[in-house]
Amino acid sequence: MSALVSEVSEVLVGLGERSYKIYLGAGLFNSESMFKTCVNSQYICLISSEAVSQLYLEQFLKNLEKFNLNKNLKIIKIILPNGESAKTWDSLNLIFTELLKFSMPRKTLILALGGGVIGDIAGLAASLYQRGVPYIQIPTTLLAQVDSSVGGKTAINHPLGKNMIGAFYQPRAVLIELDFLRTLPDREYFAGLAEVIKYGLIFDGEFFNFLEKNKNKILNKDPEILLKIIKKSCEIKSHIVSLDERESGLRAILNFGHTYGHAIETLTNYQTFLHGEAVSIGMVLALKKSMEIFNLELGLEPDLLNRVLDLLKFLNLPTDIPQNLNQTLSSENMLSAMARDKKNSGETRRLTLILLKKLGQAEICDIQI
Amino acid sequence: MSALVSEVSEVLVGLGERSYKIYLGAGLFNSESMFKTCVNSQYICLISSEAVSQLYLEQFLKNLEKFNLNKNLKIIKIILPNGESAKTWDSLNLIFTELLKFSMPRKTLILALGGGVIGDIAGLAASLYQRGVPYIQIPTTLLAQVDSSVGGKTAINHPLGKNMIGAFYQPRAVLIELDFLRTLPDREYFAGLAEVIKYGLIFDGEFFNFLEKNKNKILNKDPEILLKIIKKSCEIKSHIVSLDERESGLRAILNFGHTYGHAIETLTNYQTFLHGEAVSIGMVLALKKSMEIFNLELGLEPDLLNRVLDLLKFLNLPTDIPQNLNQTLSSENMLSAMARDKKNSGETRRLTLILLKKLGQAEICDIQI
Repeated sequence: MSALVSEVSEVLVGLGERSYKIYLGAGLFNSESMFKTCVNSQYICLISSEAVSQLYLEQFLKNLEKFNLNKNLKIIKIILPNGESAKTWDSLNLIFTELLKFSMPRKTLILALGGGVIGDIAGLAASLYQRGVPYIQIPTTLLAQVDSSVGGKTAINHPLGKNMIGAFYQPRAVLIELDFLRTLPDREYFAGLAEVIKYGLIFDGEFFNFLEKNKNKILNKDPEILLKIIKKSCEIKSHIVSLDERESGLRAILNFGHTYGHAIETLTNYQTFLHGEAVSIGMVLALKKSMEIFNLELGLEPDLLNRVLDLLKFLNLPTDIPQNLNQTLSSENMLSAMARDKKNSGETRRLTLILLKKLGQAEICDIQI
Repeated sequence: MSALVSEVSEVLVGLGERSYKIYLGAGLFNSESMFKTCVNSQYICLISSEAVSQLYLEQFLKNLEKFNLNKNLKIIKIILPNGESAKTWDSLNLIFTELLKFSMPRKTLILALGGGVIGDIAGLAASLYQRGVPYIQIPTTLLAQVDSSVGGKTAINHPLGKNMIGAFYQPRAVLIELDFLRTLPDREYFAGLAEVIKYGLIFDGEFFNFLEKNKNKILNKDPEILLKIIKKSCEIKSHIVSLDERESGLRAILNFGHTYGHAIETLTNYQTFLHGEAVSIGMVLALKKSMEIFNLELGLEPDLLNRVLDLLKFLNLPTDIPQNLNQTLSSENMLSAMARDKKNSGETRRLTLILLKKLGQAEICDIQI
């Protein structure tokens, strides 16, 4: 008997022949119908992290065996170390070696069961193995559920830059199991909320108001509110990605707070902040810069900065650079790290930044520095 | 003053938003208008091999400086070792390191000046650097001009298999300079002709007849005939690729002779035959298998095998396995190498082979072994 799924929500990512659905719900992970709809392949390569596999691997494999319709099911599993340091060519090559060692064919389905790091590596492996095999994202962190699992960005790091080697390669589906959030450490949960708040700021003022009104429930991980805010985040991201898959324009607004955030992460060697935490500080810096640039316009209400600061702080997110990092993250260091960011166009002394014109409306700005 | 181009022929590869043109002619390489149309970027990364760069690098860089419209032109060049052994992750990573070391931005144009190996690596580097930058193929061998530079297949090798890591990533243009063939060693020229003959066999019986009739001129590299056969080859490949970019069906017919050919290359460690030579033997084996499978049908004329053997031999191509390799390339070894080929579906004891139903018509067949 399969577990009951109270309600499965769906969000379509409309990308022509590359369109796919995001399924959201509590209990998806044990749902017979979900396995039969999505994970129905004779050849499966499951990629996960040490941390996630300790919690969920056994159950997942059991479900896979039980619900899969194929005879002679062939499953290989690859467990990578935890964290950003796994996003290397070595991890990627390990995946290729295993796939080839077991003669896994072109119709192999790759499953990415984990957070953003696993999704990024597994997606890139899928895009490159035999010039492309299908894959499904099964994100286990809030950050991956609302951001990195949607939209087909995959990557590994290069010693000279984060996410510098990658592909736009869309998954066949995204399965968002809300119950995974029960085992997610609080700090990672809050970090994920930074991206949720970002969607309100850049694209949907009403959604930002909703987050403010429901901040207590969000703090307490109320399941109903969780479903709503994750679904809305996926809808906004899907909408933007469907208009500009390869980031030739609009999609860049998703980087609000990220140019600053990446500089913070780079300068602290990814040791001090989670990605969402760096983005939280980055959004405050970008908002201040927006007020500086657009200060004469009426759109940007003067108390927006305070509202954003209050909400971020209430949700345990950092909003400025800690004193002990004032030197490491000096304006000068920040600017030179930002100039190296790949979102930038290569011109010297100019910087592409995402700024807010008003609540719910972002703009791509080319700034003289 | 730019050199005169007697005539520039064009072939369109129709792939929607990924469409591009193949330009063919003698003198393209020194043509001002060709540089202004195609190679017009401020940031250029030129990738070539030791052999090709000795012959053409200086002139190419001179033209690039002379004809490029951009101020502050920034060019980096990466010269890789000759031959298939360069198709590794190390070469690819060397390219990424150079691009990052010189902070080359997302709008960098990659130029692949070389044979199939350079085209494959440079194309894959372009597809992965910062999740994709534009690139142009400038093939210098006949094989690359009629086959590997067209259609967007890119790859590197893995110790466990050739071309196992790659992407479908279309170039922005292909520039086919016929004068490059003047410096091409004869053996490589003949090897390229194997792919030309393949197009006639699988898709255009008239073209095969034309090749037979003009075999003397082909042997003597008559420039007019060369333009005709290269253009026709590009037209046939473009047509097939535009109908099935990612090889979900039809495109597989381009692999006629290649499943056998790859097995021959693998079992001889890529030391004995050029790719085209292995394909030449492979086509004869595939044709014999076609006659065995379709022997009751009228389409496959009984003397086709002799016609193919005569033409291949006339053009100095091998048509059977040399006696000293009878053991290495025994039926048993060949079959097991073929079963590992990535074109195959993973089923045991079945093999996907491209066979001829008649001259000019190939079929994808699933064979019991």
